[in-house]
Amino acid sequence: MSIRAAIVGPTGYTSLWLIRLLLKHPGVDITYLASRREEETNIAEEFPELLGRCEMVCRPIDPAAIADEADVAFLCVPHRTGMAVVPDLLDAGVRVVDYSADYRLKDVALYEDTYGVDHTDAGNIAHAAYGLPELFPDEIPTAKLVANPGCYPTCATLGIAPLLDKQLVKPTDMVVSAVTGVSGAGRSLSQGYHFPEMNEAFRPYAAGNHRHQPEMKQVLDQFTGQSSELLFVPHVAPLTAGMLATIYLQPADQVTEEDCYAAFEDAYAGKPFVRVRADLPDVKHVVNTNYCDVAVRIAAGKVMVFAAIDNMMKGASSQAVQNMNLMFDQEETAGLL
Amino acid sequence: MSIRAAIVGPTGYTSLWLIRLLLKHPGVDITYLASRREEETNIAEEFPELLGRCEMVCRPIDPAAIADEADVAFLCVPHRTGMAVVPDLLDAGVRVVDYSADYRLKDVALYEDTYGVDHTDAGNIAHAAYGLPELFPDEIPTAKLVANPGCYPTCATLGIAPLLDKQLVKPTDMVVSAVTGVSGAGRSLSQGYHFPEMNEAFRPYAAGNHRHQPEMKQVLDQFTGQSSELLFVPHVAPLTAGMLATIYLQPADQVTEEDCYAAFEDAYAGKPFVRVRADLPDVKHVVNTNYCDVAVRIAAGKVMVFAAIDNMMKGASSQAVQNMNLMFDQEETAGLL
Amino acid sequence: MSIRAAIVGPTGYTSLWLIRLLLKHPGVDITYLASRREEETNIAEEFPELLGRCEMVCRPIDPAAIADEADVAFLCVPHRTGMAVVPDLLDAGVRVVDYSADYRLKDVALYEDTYGVDHTDAGNIAHAAYGLPELFPDEIPTAKLVANPGCYPTCATLGIAPLLDKQLVKPTDMVVSAVTGVSGAGRSLSQGYHFPEMNEAFRPYAAGNHRHQPEMKQVLDQFTGQSSELLFVPHVAPLTAGMLATIYLQPADQVTEEDCYAAFEDAYAGKPFVRVRADLPDVKHVVNTNYCDVAVRIAAGKVMVFAAIDNMMKGASSQAVQNMNLMFDQEETAGLL
Amino acid sequence: MSIRAAIVGPTGYTSLWLIRLLLKHPGVDITYLASRREEETNIAEEFPELLGRCEMVCRPIDPAAIADEADVAFLCVPHRTGMAVVPDLLDAGVRVVDYSADYRLKDVALYEDTYGVDHTDAGNIAHAAYGLPELFPDEIPTAKLVANPGCYPTCATLGIAPLLDKQLVKPTDMVVSAVTGVSGAGRSLSQGYHFPEMNEAFRPYAAGNHRHQPEMKQVLDQFTGQSSELLFVPHVAPLTAGMLATIYLQPADQVTEEDCYAAFEDAYAGKPFVRVRADLPDVKHVVNTNYCDVAVRIAAGKVMVFAAIDNMMKGASSQAVQNMNLMFDQEETAGLL
Repeated sequence: MSIRAAIVGPTGYTSLWLIRLLLKHPGVDITYLASRREEETNIAEEFPELLGRCEMVCRPIDPAAIADEADVAFLCVPHRTGMAVVPDLLDAGVRVVDYSADYRLKDVALYEDTYGVDHTDAGNIAHAAYGLPELFPDEIPTAKLVANPGCYPTCATLGIAPLLDKQLVKPTDMVVSAVTGVSGAGRSLSQGYHFPEMNEAFRPYAAGNHRHQPEMKQVLDQFTGQSSELLFVPHVAPLTAGMLATIYLQPADQVTEEDCYAAFEDAYAGKPFVRVRADLPDVKHVVNTNYCDVAVRIAAGKVMVFAAIDNMMKGASSQAVQNMNLMFDQEETAGLL
Repeated sequence: MSIRAAIVGPTGYTSLWLIRLLLKHPGVDITYLASRREEETNIAEEFPELLGRCEMVCRPIDPAAIADEADVAFLCVPHRTGMAVVPDLLDAGVRVVDYSADYRLKDVALYEDTYGVDHTDAGNIAHAAYGLPELFPDEIPTAKLVANPGCYPTCATLGIAPLLDKQLVKPTDMVVSAVTGVSGAGRSLSQGYHFPEMNEAFRPYAAGNHRHQPEMKQVLDQFTGQSSELLFVPHVAPLTAGMLATIYLQPADQVTEEDCYAAFEDAYAGKPFVRVRADLPDVKHVVNTNYCDVAVRIAAGKVMVFAAIDNMMKGASSQAVQNMNLMFDQEETAGLL
Repeated sequence: MSIRAAIVGPTGYTSLWLIRLLLKHPGVDITYLASRREEETNIAEEFPELLGRCEMVCRPIDPAAIADEADVAFLCVPHRTGMAVVPDLLDAGVRVVDYSADYRLKDVALYEDTYGVDHTDAGNIAHAAYGLPELFPDEIPTAKLVANPGCYPTCATLGIAPLLDKQLVKPTDMVVSAVTGVSGAGRSLSQGYHFPEMNEAFRPYAAGNHRHQPEMKQVLDQFTGQSSELLFVPHVAPLTAGMLATIYLQPADQVTEEDCYAAFEDAYAGKPFVRVRADLPDVKHVVNTNYCDVAVRIAAGKVMVFAAIDNMMKGASSQAVQNMNLMFDQEETAGLL
Repeated sequence: MSIRAAIVGPTGYTSLWLIRLLLKHPGVDITYLASRREEETNIAEEFPELLGRCEMVCRPIDPAAIADEADVAFLCVPHRTGMAVVPDLLDAGVRVVDYSADYRLKDVALYEDTYGVDHTDAGNIAHAAYGLPELFPDEIPTAKLVANPGCYPTCATLGIAPLLDKQLVKPTDMVVSAVTGVSGAGRSLSQGYHFPEMNEAFRPYAAGNHRHQPEMKQVLDQFTGQSSELLFVPHVAPLTAGMLATIYLQPADQVTEEDCYAAFEDAYAGKPFVRVRADLPDVKHVVNTNYCDVAVRIAAGKVMVFAAIDNMMKGASSQAVQNMNLMFDQEETAGLL
């Protein structure tokens, strides 16, 4: 019997990638597309590639109706919209994978400071599992609500956490210098992402003040038992999808590349979606997959970690499916290999 | 003594390309940027590449003020805006190179039908020179008003006119299958030109009903003495700039490639900006230049012509500069090689 | 029980795309990679994206060994190599899907003239099914040898055949103006496909003399009962994958767009991989799928057909899988949706 | 009277960019193209964009012949080739701008260790001026031999030197995380730069062991009076040209962004080709120019500097022209604005 899935916010990119995945998933049916748009939209008109594959009409965001037809709701929505619909969906008995940032940060004040809004559902934060299965496998299977991680925190913390956990690097003076494809900026139009201005361009943005920096720090603090010190600088490259984090760390004494590789091999043994590589990663090798590729080098007194994912896949929708698989007792890899 | 140039509509792409050209032109000073925007805009904030190179503030579109400070006005504007400002500029004594379509079509009814608006300055159409110097050199030098041609008509007619002129091909059943870079769609935002939707995409549009089709026909009719029959189908490719027209023509009897090449060599002898090539053109070879590259092949009973330009240069701004050079008795190539 | 598949010529792009497909196919195991390379190659070193997914070592092209381990061999090889291995593979009892051109053209003399080599296995040409299931479904299921079609013939003939079949267009004076992504040129290096020379480039090649032109004609002749007259001009665009054919046809009398759409709907009813579209196709909408999208317009006395495929999928490897599905009594869509 | 320029190694990308610049330069004539190729090559066949613009035939690398026809030779060659031709050119009386690495490093042993070859002309190293005019203006005007800097050292040290000079940052624990366009890898073919493998790709390379790291260190040591400690990690992005360095530095006590900007403004006052920006740089804004754009931010206890150039222009050929202008008493900006 298939899992019945609803998608809230179906007209953005993360939803499109999710629909592609669910159409290929052997154990899932998409049953409900829920949108705030007033006019009814056939999703195949919004995304012409879906002609003949998924021609559902978007319906209102009605938790009771969703609960009638779906076991799980994927919320492909920005912050604020997550907490606007989560309580009613949970009350109606629908399990939720929330792409928004609303239940990721455990510290409400930090959330409110970072996102500049009041949190309207703080009570559910404690019940949300952080959906990064390679680092936090325990709570996801039984969670009613999974906070699907940010793309940058996924990429960066998979590259750092095993080294912190084994105390091979110091929890201070960490630098995450990362690059994303343009899909990470979403489907809404803006001048900087107009083709002629993004093509043949490369630029940093939000240097040192990106909202994913506190999320990374929260994850890493759980491996250090102390407050981590981290600087995160994102850049955008003319790619549709893909993400690479180049991470500069201070080694503990006497650390070798072999030590670091051993820590990765140990942390990711039995984890099907992290590939510890001898060669350096390339976003090309992970695009359209749920893999995170990691490699490490030591030079000039620094440990360098390179971690690559597809920002729309392991950074968003395939990770959401991985979480759903775990929540519904499916093979973790179902529909993802 | 330098030519003083005003630019009306300075915040679009054709203006940016024009500013780049005029900054390098040895005989021109940019003296006035005129915009409909209400707030004052420093053009270097609009286009950060201009920092330190051109930091003028946009001023109102005031014909008298423009006339005080400029000898020529480049109108980097869409249809309707051209005819809205041309009469007053001409009255004020400013010579005009108009990028809009408003003075290109000699037949007012055809213009009104094609663009879906009434023409408000039909009287000046007859006084406008069509600014394609390789085909119509005579009127430009003395014109007060030059209608700068469309990008597609420039590219296609430079490839067809010499063959029609020598009666090597028939004026019927002509097909122009062309491709443009995305800058041709302008700087205004739209979903189809958002980077993730244009990258790795290729598509036709306006098949058989593009507004440049009547303009092409008007040009070609002057070489046939009869009504030409033409189908024009544009496509867009993931390029910032560039244009290639692949043109399928019916040969007259006994026509050879040598005949066609001879016609091109004859038509473009002494024309510095058309290069008749033995090899096939590539938009790569003309981007950032004022060149039009043409080549011809015969196979399967058809004459094929390939013509390549940079849509923003020979298709817009460098052709505008070429026209200005001719209007102000400069070397035709000044600032363009 | 899974179909056991061998791949001959595993280090090219079509093989990489095939491996991706077969790894996801629920009913196939890859059992043998056969290469002419002298040193043993781990395919995951050749294609780093395959790390942890497919790390098989390439072995010699040994028909007996292949027959021991495989039910079907996909020949991802160029012309000449196909006929060099097909006879022994068939003799050994392996069914074959041959990507090379060697068994596509039924006329040996035409093959030899087109490819400039002698055919060394002409006897098997008659036994080869042409693997374009939407047009020629009958012979594939029982064939020992399927000639997988060229990418351009697949794209173009799916757009033309139904109109010829219903006599809505004339079999003369047909023009196929097409565009491919760069993967179509293969994995071997050449200056024109070096990134800095292909990026921001667009160009025609082999105008009127491409080897796929006779193959298209052969397909179309079967729908006209006479010799078709066709001109084919390919171009290359800066895309990894994708193909669009813009086809210019002479209508029979009184033909309407509705007639053409009716012919398409009729021809492709029940065909899961051709999508007859009201809007114009975009390669973006078919990339990474086995779909062919078609649309039609009439203007200026011409019927225009637009057909889009992924050149590496429906133009090569997903079509090969579709053929394999039919040969081995699987669902036609298995592993392809 | 024009400067007569020879180009040695004319068939690579840096030469193509140089030819473009020299053709537009008002005070230079290209008089000699010198190549090791045995057959005579018309440069317009090698680079089809030069048809009608520069159709010179390459001649042998004959110092006496070059001296007869040229005042300056640009050596667009890799390491080893520079020192193979420099002595004879200098002896023949030709002044040289050498793009190779052979005269950049002042320490012969470090050169030999870094490049893995013996230096065959160590005596001339001391006479070579390091051609980064904004940092080392004094020796260039009178030098017979200018070592044109590496692209990465140009970009990175323009971003770091003023801060070191004012002791605003520490000379230890510096990280340069940089990105280049693909032209930086040269025109020779390799699998990783084949279009389908570079398109939609992004990857690090030579992490911590790139040959430009010692060159950067040598430059910076001149501003610190001690041995600098630096880690350099390059990446390649799917751009034809452009380079961005994101630089992570340890601030001295109490340093503010204002202090850093003041240091930049002071260092680059009167330098026409460095633009100190308030907003963050984008390679888009410097491509096809000789500009270096720099900006600075402080966050999380780090000083971040962002520096952008065009790797083929300020990183190679326009910097070479800037050096030539200074050597021949031209305006520093001649042919470059």
